Amino acid sequence: MSKITIRDVAKQCNVSVSTVSRAINNHPEINQRTRNIILKKIKELGYTPNSNARNLKRLETNTIAVLIKGIGNLFFQPMFKVLENEITKNGYSFLLYKVEEQDNEIDVALKLSQDIKPKGIIFLGGCFMDEDKKILEEIGIPFVVTAIVSKNMSIKNSACVGVDDFLESKKMVNYLLSLGHKKIAIIGSRYDDASIGMLRVNGYKQALTENNISIDENLIFTTTKNEDPYTFEYGYKTIDILLDKKLDFSAIYCVSDAIAIGVLKRLREKGIKSPRDYSVVGFDGLEINDYLNPTITTIKQPVENMALTACNVLFNIISGKPYKKVVTFEGELFVGQTTDKR
Amino acid sequence: MSKITIRDVAKQCNVSVSTVSRAINNHPEINQRTRNIILKKIKELGYTPNSNARNLKRLETNTIAVLIKGIGNLFFQPMFKVLENEITKNGYSFLLYKVEEQDNEIDVALKLSQDIKPKGIIFLGGCFMDEDKKILEEIGIPFVVTAIVSKNMSIKNSACVGVDDFLESKKMVNYLLSLGHKKIAIIGSRYDDASIGMLRVNGYKQALTENNISIDENLIFTTTKNEDPYTFEYGYKTIDILLDKKLDFSAIYCVSDAIAIGVLKRLREKGIKSPRDYSVVGFDGLEINDYLNPTITTIKQPVENMALTACNVLFNIISGKPYKKVVTFEGELFVGQTTDKR
Repeated sequence: MSKITIRDVAKQCNVSVSTVSRAINNHPEINQRTRNIILKKIKELGYTPNSNARNLKRLETNTIAVLIKGIGNLFFQPMFKVLENEITKNGYSFLLYKVEEQDNEIDVALKLSQDIKPKGIIFLGGCFMDEDKKILEEIGIPFVVTAIVSKNMSIKNSACVGVDDFLESKKMVNYLLSLGHKKIAIIGSRYDDASIGMLRVNGYKQALTENNISIDENLIFTTTKNEDPYTFEYGYKTIDILLDKKLDFSAIYCVSDAIAIGVLKRLREKGIKSPRDYSVVGFDGLEINDYLNPTITTIKQPVENMALTACNVLFNIISGKPYKKVVTFEGELFVGQTTDKR
Repeated sequence: MSKITIRDVAKQCNVSVSTVSRAINNHPEINQRTRNIILKKIKELGYTPNSNARNLKRLETNTIAVLIKGIGNLFFQPMFKVLENEITKNGYSFLLYKVEEQDNEIDVALKLSQDIKPKGIIFLGGCFMDEDKKILEEIGIPFVVTAIVSKNMSIKNSACVGVDDFLESKKMVNYLLSLGHKKIAIIGSRYDDASIGMLRVNGYKQALTENNISIDENLIFTTTKNEDPYTFEYGYKTIDILLDKKLDFSAIYCVSDAIAIGVLKRLREKGIKSPRDYSVVGFDGLEINDYLNPTITTIKQPVENMALTACNVLFNIISGKPYKKVVTFEGELFVGQTTDKR
């Protein structure tokens, strides 16, 4: 039997050669059923597509990679659907890639750039300020970071989309102050966090200072351990440490809703009531918050809108159109059932 | 200037040629900092690695792809970390790929097999019985499906790991019966669901039949719409429809905890109390359940153990070792605060 060609496959499947080619390269316009039939036939006939041509195609894949740090973080959940819709609607493939808390997202991005050569990258979470990201500029991959904004964006072909964590944090603390709370404990992230957790802690400090309230370092809780601070467990454990210190405070500001959820659980177990005994607030505006009892006072981030904008900015960068390097959204103060007047 | 070779890069970076090669191909044993320096230098010198060799390497990538259907489903969250740990610990790359609710996961798997040729695939969710999966056998990619078990696994180099949804569902209904509930409404998934949702509904029917309780089709709620039934919103909306029918029932069995969370929210809004007015139960044992008020009576699935086992079975298949085709875990009846005697 002579060598099987693409024409043999096309003939046997009763389709054109270009359809077979589309099947092999998974062209966006091919019907997946047709494709399955063709792939079966290829296997059956033992046809081997010219591998150089195939590899070339693979290098040209139209992929947008979404790198997420902290996939356990419920905050990113509603973004996935928006990102995938927008990315595929615009003719790209959507690839979601997870970065471990202790890993550097840029290392993962570089690995990915070798493996699949994406047309662009969207970072969900992680630390923006990382100088390493300049490497992406050098290897020519455009990227957008969300949900964090950085004022000094010097890297070419990149942008950031998010809320201003510092200002939003001030907004939250000002709300607590407006209720008469002056002694506000804060549960932050790692002490060496250079990202959103610390921006929120800094916003807290600034709001107090602007209101002539001295900062009590005892009321500022951060962790040194290598643990994920955006979890229920972290809040659940940390509130015990805070209460054991027998400090005087009337409100607890958790830098994420996840932390607040853990805190409220532990308070309930101890017979401590919120807001009667302590006002408790979070940050993020998780979807689950609407279903909690009590609902938590928080800053709602417009996550769907942020995801949509991140995509559009990235597409503009890729196609050489003008784009905004920094897109700042405003958060919404959501008054739930965990806050009351002092 | 003569053509830049890999030796020039090695010399300038003060590393060996094999280290440069490792950097280019992202060998697991290369330090990522070293790799970044080398990649920068490659860019700087304008060195182009032999593309045929690179493409060959790319075909040999050691990737395990994890395909998840319903990434919004909180149930899968705790599995990610386990899967990534196990996959990377065993020298493979971890790739997470999302499948839309309306898409066929096998189409996505085929696309992936063209793009990156994974060594194996783990499916999280989706429908196992799909005949299409035979294509994976044909193209020679081993796979494991979790969290669903199928009795008749005829496909070579594949396995399934999960709980027996039918039996576990019976366990839940038997518990409700033991509390004296005889009229039990059930909120299921789509009427045409051939997967876990329907197995749970069938388990409910079987438990009633075995206890000589006639099945009232009015109390069985499924949806025909193209919506994701494993969401809070679905439960929130559906309980209204159920209550509007003014049917007589004392317990509500939701085929997922997510549905139960939505149901409980709506009941609270209406001033209806659980368990006083209705006992409400879920299924899955979501992590968030421990933090809810009230906690929901549910079937806890051993998700971490299931993920670990799925990996180990897949590794055994890949390395030609013996493996169990069907691994069934037992679920745990968790008695929360939403159930009481009739």
